[in-house]
Order: sequence, then structure tokens, then C-alpha cells
Amino acid sequence: MAKGASISGFPEWLPSERVVEQRVIDTLRGVFELNGFIGIETRAVEQGSSLLKKGETSKEIYLLSRLQEVGQENDTPVEDRLGLHFDLTVPLSRYVVEHSGDLAFPFKRWQIQKVWRGERPQEGRFREFVQADIDVIGQGDLPDHYEVELPLVMVSALERLREFGLPKATVHANNRKLSEGFYRGLGLTDIEGVLREIDKLDKIGADEVAKLLVEGCGASEDQARACLELADLTAANGDELAVKFDALCAKHGIAADSEAYVLARQGLDTLAMIVDESARIRPGSVIADLKIARGLDYYTGSVYETFLDGASSLGSICSGGRYDNLASQGSRKYPGVGLSIGLSRLVSYMLHTAGAHASRVSPAAVLVAVWNEEDRPQSNLIANDLRARGIAADVAPTAAKLGKQIKYADKLGIPYVWFPADKSDENAHDEVKNIVSGEQCEADSRSWEPDSVVARQTVEVADR
Amino acid sequence: MAKGASISGFPEWLPSERVVEQRVIDTLRGVFELNGFIGIETRAVEQGSSLLKKGETSKEIYLLSRLQEVGQENDTPVEDRLGLHFDLTVPLSRYVVEHSGDLAFPFKRWQIQKVWRGERPQEGRFREFVQADIDVIGQGDLPDHYEVELPLVMVSALERLREFGLPKATVHANNRKLSEGFYRGLGLTDIEGVLREIDKLDKIGADEVAKLLVEGCGASEDQARACLELADLTAANGDELAVKFDALCAKHGIAADSEAYVLARQGLDTLAMIVDESARIRPGSVIADLKIARGLDYYTGSVYETFLDGASSLGSICSGGRYDNLASQGSRKYPGVGLSIGLSRLVSYMLHTAGAHASRVSPAAVLVAVWNEEDRPQSNLIANDLRARGIAADVAPTAAKLGKQIKYADKLGIPYVWFPADKSDENAHDEVKNIVSGEQCEADSRSWEPDSVVARQTVEVADR
Repeated sequence: MAKGASISGFPEWLPSERVVEQRVIDTLRGVFELNGFIGIETRAVEQGSSLLKKGETSKEIYLLSRLQEVGQENDTPVEDRLGLHFDLTVPLSRYVVEHSGDLAFPFKRWQIQKVWRGERPQEGRFREFVQADIDVIGQGDLPDHYEVELPLVMVSALERLREFGLPKATVHANNRKLSEGFYRGLGLTDIEGVLREIDKLDKIGADEVAKLLVEGCGASEDQARACLELADLTAANGDELAVKFDALCAKHGIAADSEAYVLARQGLDTLAMIVDESARIRPGSVIADLKIARGLDYYTGSVYETFLDGASSLGSICSGGRYDNLASQGSRKYPGVGLSIGLSRLVSYMLHTAGAHASRVSPAAVLVAVWNEEDRPQSNLIANDLRARGIAADVAPTAAKLGKQIKYADKLGIPYVWFPADKSDENAHDEVKNIVSGEQCEADSRSWEPDSVVARQTVEVADR
Repeated sequence: MAKGASISGFPEWLPSERVVEQRVIDTLRGVFELNGFIGIETRAVEQGSSLLKKGETSKEIYLLSRLQEVGQENDTPVEDRLGLHFDLTVPLSRYVVEHSGDLAFPFKRWQIQKVWRGERPQEGRFREFVQADIDVIGQGDLPDHYEVELPLVMVSALERLREFGLPKATVHANNRKLSEGFYRGLGLTDIEGVLREIDKLDKIGADEVAKLLVEGCGASEDQARACLELADLTAANGDELAVKFDALCAKHGIAADSEAYVLARQGLDTLAMIVDESARIRPGSVIADLKIARGLDYYTGSVYETFLDGASSLGSICSGGRYDNLASQGSRKYPGVGLSIGLSRLVSYMLHTAGAHASRVSPAAVLVAVWNEEDRPQSNLIANDLRARGIAADVAPTAAKLGKQIKYADKLGIPYVWFPADKSDENAHDEVKNIVSGEQCEADSRSWEPDSVVARQTVEVADR
């Protein structure tokens, strides 16, 4: 992050860092569109009422007021005020219902935008950040196969970021129905509560979670231990998952003909399909992890979190799940499934831990020198010749000493400096110098081509 | 704009409209980078104190408050609260000063971002919209030649948008020093006031402006008429401009050795340079128009407005100027010059008046059909083969009747539907159909290439 960012939680990149963020955004957008996702952008604000309705972050909202209304803000109830969106899922649900007549369903969309969380300022927490989301929304119903495909699209997108230093990403999947059915089979009723405590497993450990389940969720010691056993279950494939789960049910007296088991089994079948399909297409990219709970209360089926190899402290960098009840219009439902990348945190990691950096600050490949201000038009014409052929070019800011002009190019990372011909000498030619290699040659601005590798502004990864 | 946008002033595009906006953004970014401008993104919020300091829009600010602080907002003075930026110039000034040690000067940057204006809701006014800005900021000083180059970069960017139906754009330039020197030479002292009234010329006409100058700015009838004569002055080139201006000064008794004339002459020389240089590089793209005043009080030299042929009701679509005093750090100044496109209004015009539209909604070029759900993996493999070669592909949502699958492709504008081979027939081949032309042929997903024109998602212009 740019040094001295003056408002805590509002990160801002230096130009060279922004090159990396922009490249990440371009790459994700490219993968999303390659997979047929349609880009939208929603307004930054929503009605207070819809922001308050959903999700764990409903307490972290920035409300807006017009300067002219200072002092009278509270004449309007919070529900009727405008607030900044805290994610891209709530806006999508609203957008889909509002424009349902103009959309083709299932509606596959990508969206990369800033979101805001009205948190108290604290170290390392962003209050403004970019999210990169994909979702599929059905009208009435939505086939399960999207619960397999969406995490795989995210995996392939994250895979593309590995050339910028990102470690391998693995999606950990679970299913809410599986957990809920199992908990109900044990005789537990505070399902939300149990999920919320299980979600803390990685942070506080099994013993603490067991204590919280007993103290806060009405679980006996045995029930708490059973919940932890489920969270611990691992399997190499769908069949093994089913066998192990059935054994656990038998052990805890959950009958195969009980309502609870039937619910759990629905979730298990979807999870098995995810694991097996993923293994076929991209082995090792998506695994079953039965402790994944997700805090948000709107998930109704699959839930996902994504971790980077060797970066567990970063937590999940891409999360989501299936939500059947987030949007509706009369009796018609709009079930969806989606995942969201916390892009600002990811870029921060790439810059500061993975060593990603821009090959240069300026997009220009060439700086055209200026011998004296009267000859600036000559330099402008050369730059325009180059631009007309797609070669990004800048012109020296002043007719300073040549050394100073080259230093300006060097500071911006511009690899070529162009020397216009001496106009007083009929036989003189333009010359161009690669200031990195020192190579210099005659050149014509209407035909010269830069080295194709040197010409590109790219993102590189430092040797570590 | 999407029908039924539910919050007045917060426009939202339908997916097909967003394609046009996205293409406009990509095009502008491309031109800006071709000219060596560096992309940055600033946070959406600034301190109230810096938002209140500058510009005409300082009264139209959205202030933020955390939901937890409702009722206590006014314990904090407005200056210490956070507000959404209303333009990209104030944030740039702050960014440049804050990060001056990490930037190379002159700093040429492009920035395309949303801005917010906390206006009262009213017909046709946007309260959230996208601006596309270029600026050059110097450290200590900034050469005048940027006052020629920046409008020309904008002209070449707007020129590129003509393929999407935008009419020809002309930049109208003036210079604050020229106006101020002339007004002072007449004996007027309320320069801000005169500029503000002259700015209304196109809206309310000469007689009304004269009245306002007399009533509000302390001008005599003669002084008011002289101001209007200046506003009316036109010239084909820099020399003619100087001759006509000198004649006007002589007529109104402004001596060539007066301080006022010297100031005016500085402005005139810069304006003459702009007109002559532009005529050389892009004839007709930039003209002198001495009634251009610009409302913002921070301009100190050149000012620009841009109008589209046949769209005068739209007003200026790209405005800006030179500002010498917006940013400083101790005694060091950071003078700048820049222009800003009101992108949302421009896109609205392109969509609704110029007839720009997306060739299709989906980025996918191919929809792979699914014969039955068991064979979905086969269809997924075909789609992945195509994607691996850069061909955007989607897979049918369900194994519905073929007609229904084709209809889904048609609704999204996807030109090709791919039919996987019948697996039970060893001799069967995959086939692909262009559903627009009806042409169908055998194809291999590892080698087939779509028609290069059909494959691209583009922006087209309706015959009008």
C-alpha cells in the first residue's frame, strides 16, 4: 500500500502498484468473459432497508447524508436513507429482480467493484476495497451443476494469477444441508449458532469451540464432540465421503430414514459431485472440508472458502456459496450461487509478500527527446507516428540537457529514448536508443518496431 | 439507462448497455496509455475539509456516517468527517502532495472513476456518475506546452469514439488571464463575478448577462457591453486573435503598457499557441472561444469546454483547464492542467441518441449444447478446449429440447451453437452451427476457428 495513506482503512496504490492491481483485474475479467459471464456494474448505493436485511456485515454500513441536510439526518429513518453497498451480492439480488424482464436466465454475471464497510478503524482492516465476483442466478430454479462450475471458474482465474506470484489456490467446499441435517439428527436445534461456532475452529481450536457449543447452543458434551467429528471428516472422493459420513451417522444414532438424514444426504450428494467433477477436470483444486461454515446466514447449500498454499494467515481469499432465498418477486424465487474474491487483500499480498511488481511505471515504450523548445513540434510528430502504429510514446517535458531527459525516461522505466534528426543536417537520421542495453540505431518513426518483449508493460515476480 | 432505476440520479445500465460503457472506458484508457499517461485510482472518500475547500460543487457533497454512529454524526465537525469525492481533481491534488516523493514529475495521469454529487434529486441530473480524466501535474513549475497537448489527447480520444456513433467534438478554449486582464483594464474588480455571469451567456443571452453584470458586478452599461464584445470575439488563428484583441483594447482605452494588458497578453499568447498548434496537428479540433469562462474558481490559465456537433443541448462533454494553486506543500506548488469527460452522460447520449448498441449481450461466441445431463461433462470438455484457445464459450444451462437451447443462445446473442457428437456412434463428429446464417459443419474443438468478425462482441451503430 502507498506509504502514508492518510485515512486508515482506505488503501491507495502508488502508480507502479496500481499496474499490478489493474493487471489482476484485467486477467480476472478475461477469464470470466472466456467462461461466458456477463459484466455489470451496479450503483454504489442501496436503500438502507435492503442493506439492513442481509448478511453478517449489516452492522458495518456507511450511511450517506447530503451536506445541506447536516443536523437533520435523523429526520429520515435509516431504512429510507441511502448507504454504500458492503458487498456485491445484495446489489446483484436487487438488480436481478428490478431488471428481470430484460435478462436471460440463468443470468451469469461478473462484477468487479469497490465495496465499503463502515467499521471502526483498526490495523490491517480495509474499509474500502475491491471485490471480484461471479454469480449465476436462476429464475424459479437453478441446476446444481453450477455449484461445481463456479468454483472451477474461480480456480482457473486464480491459476492465471500464478504468473504474478500467487501461490496455488485450493477451494474448500462444504454444504449447509449436510451440516444442518447432521446437527438436527443429533437433536440440536440452534443450527445458526452451531455453524457460527464451528466457523471459529481454525481460530480458537476444538476445545474452545466445544465449550461454546455447550454454553451457547444447548449442546451436550457428546453432541459437541459429534459436531467436531463431522468438521474433521476428510475424504479423497465422493464415495469415500459418503461411506465415512454414513459411519458417523450410524455411530451417533442418526437413522437413514430420518428427515434429518435425508436433508444431510442431499447436501452430501451435491458435495460429492463437486469433489468428483473437480478431480476429473482439475485434480486437487477443490476439496471437501466439512468444517467450512461461513458466517453469512443466507447460504442454503454449497459453501466455499479458498486458501493459498503457504499463506494460511491470509485466511480465505475467495468465498461464497449457494443462496436460494436472497431474492424473490412475489412467489417467484431467484436462487443463486456465487463466489467473491477479496481483490484488494489479494493484491496487497501479491505486492508485499509474493514480490509482484510492474516492469515499469509508465505505459510508454518510447520517450521522444526534445533538442530545444522550438523543435518540440518535430518531436510531437514522431510520437504521433509511433502512436498511430500502437506504440505508446511520451515526449520529454522540457528541452533539458540530454542526460536529464534520459533520467526522466529511466525514472518512469521507459526503455527507449528517441533522438530526432538534426534538422540542419540533410543527411542526418533519427536514432533510437535502448537505455537498458545501451544499443542505439537509426530508425524511422513510420516503420521502426520495438523489441516485442521490451515494449510491453508487464508484471514480474522478484526472485526471492 | 435501465428502465425503472429505483433511486433517482443513480443510473444503472442493463448488460447490453454496459457493454457500450465498458468499450468506451477501454477505448479511452487505450488512448490515454498510448500517450504515456499513467493510471491511478484514488479512494472514494476525502476529508470534509479538503472537499469544502475547492470548486463549485463544494455544496454538493455526500457525507458518510457509520451506522453505529447514527444520532451522533454531528458530534464531529463536517471538516473532520469523510465525504465522497465530487470530482477527480481534488483527489489528484491530494494524492500528488501525499506521494510526491514516489512520483516522477511532470506526473501525467489518467483516472476513470465514479464521483458523487449530493444534489437534490431532479430530472436528468446524475448524483452518481463516471468521470474520465487526464491531468499533468508539475512540481514547482509546469511548461505551457501541456496546455496544447492535453486538449489534443482528449480530441484524439473522442475521435476514437466516433466509430460508436459519437459526433465530431470541438474543444473551445479560452484563457483566464486574458479575460481577467481585459476586465481589469476596463476598471472592473469583481473578476470572479464577471466570469460567473459570462458563463451564463449561452443559457440566458447577452441582454440578461449585461443586466446581471450591471446589477451584480458593479459594471457600467459600457463596461458590460465591452465584456460581451470580448466574449464575442472569434479568430481563425493566433495572429488574427492578437490583432482583434488589440483593436478591442484600443477601443476601450486599455493601454499596451498597463499591468492589465500585460496579464491579458500572457493569456492571449498561450491561447494563440493552442489554436495554431492544434490547427497544425488536427485542424478544426480546437478553437478560440472567448466566452468560455468555467464556473470553478481554481482555474488560473487556459480553460476548455468541448461540444459535439449537433448536440448543443448536451452542453460541454469534456471540460477543464490550468490550475496553478490547487495543490501545494509548504512553499512548493504543484501546478496542473487537465480535462475531464463526463462519461456517464456521454454514454447515455451514445445509447439513446447516437444509436450505439452491443452486437450481443454475452461475451461467449459459442454455446455448447447438452444432450442429457449425464453427458454434461462431455460438453464441459468441449467448452474448455475452446476457452484454452481463447474462444469464449458457455454451456447450455439444462439438457432441454434443442430448440430451447438454441433460443437461449439467441437471447444472449451467442452466434454459434456446438453439437457434441453422439457418443454411441463411433463415426459421429461434433458439429457447429452459425445460428444467424444457418450454416452448419463438422468441427473439432481443438482446432475449429470461428469467423473472426462474428466471434467478436462489438459495439455497433444503428442506421438512423
